[in-house]
Amino acid sequence: MSVFTKTALLAGAAAIAATTALAGSHSEENPAVKARKAHMQLYAHNIGILAGMARGNTEYDADAAVAAASNLADLSHINEASYWVPGTDSESIDGTRALPALFENLDDVQAKIDQLNAASVALSETAGNGLEAVQAGLGPVGQVCGSCHDDYRVPNN
Amino acid sequence: MSVFTKTALLAGAAAIAATTALAGSHSEENPAVKARKAHMQLYAHNIGILAGMARGNTEYDADAAVAAASNLADLSHINEASYWVPGTDSESIDGTRALPALFENLDDVQAKIDQLNAASVALSETAGNGLEAVQAGLGPVGQVCGSCHDDYRVPNN
Repeated sequence: MSVFTKTALLAGAAAIAATTALAGSHSEENPAVKARKAHMQLYAHNIGILAGMARGNTEYDADAAVAAASNLADLSHINEASYWVPGTDSESIDGTRALPALFENLDDVQAKIDQLNAASVALSETAGNGLEAVQAGLGPVGQVCGSCHDDYRVPNN
Repeated sequence: MSVFTKTALLAGAAAIAATTALAGSHSEENPAVKARKAHMQLYAHNIGILAGMARGNTEYDADAAVAAASNLADLSHINEASYWVPGTDSESIDGTRALPALFENLDDVQAKIDQLNAASVALSETAGNGLEAVQAGLGPVGQVCGSCHDDYRVPNN
C-alpha cells in the first residue's frame, strides 16, 4: 500500500490546521511546508556530521557516525503523507521549492525515500568501521538526495 | 551505554560547522538549536494531527492516525547527542528555551525520550482501532512531553 493514499492526504490536509496552534508558532508559513522543511533540516544536520568527517573537516568518531547514519534511517522511515498536501507546490504558494511534478509522482517520491532508507541503513551498519566506510557509504545517500532534488525541487539560481 | 557520551557530544560540536553549509542556510542561528527546533516542529506536526482528531476538530482517519503515531516513534528513536552541545543553553545564547538544567541531566532527558518512544509505539499499535483508542493513547504521549518541558524548558510567560 502506498503511504500516499488519497485518504491519508485529505486527512493530513484537514488535520493540519490543528498543528500550528499546538506548535505555538506565530509563523504564517503553511504548516505542511514547515514540517517538510524541518524534516529536510534534520537530514542536512545528520548528513553534515557525516560529510564533515568524510571531507576531513572533523575527526572521525565511530559513535557519532553510527548515530548520524541511524538517524537518517529513522528520518527516511517517517510517513510523509501529511507533508505533500495538494495545493502546496511551488506554483501554488510562496515559500516552497517543491515542484508540481512532485505531487504528480508521489509513488516515485516514495520509491526514492525507500532508496534513501536502504542506503542509510547500510551506512549505519558500516559507519563504525572507520572513515573509509563512511566515505564509501555516504555516496549512495548523497546520490538519492540529489536524484529527488533534481527531479522535484526548483533548481538553484 | 548512554547516547549522550562526552565523545559524541564533542564530535557533534566539532562537526556542526559543516552542517550549515550543507543545509544551504543563511540563518545565523546556532546549528544545534536549529536541529532541535526542527525536531520539535516534527513532534508538533504529528501530535497536531492526532490531537485534531482527539478533540473532534478533524475526522478520525485510521491510516493517518497510525502514520502520525509511528512517526512519533521514529522521531523519539533519533539519537539527540548532536543537539545538546555544551554552551547552547538559554543562559549562554539567545534563541533557545533549553534550560541549563537539561545539559546537567542528560541521562534523565534520555529516559524521558525513551518513555516518549514507548508511549508512541503503544499508540501506533492501537491508533487504528478507533477514535477512543487515539484519545486514550495520546494521554501518555502528552504527559511525557509536558514532563520534559516542565523540567527543562524556559516557562511560558
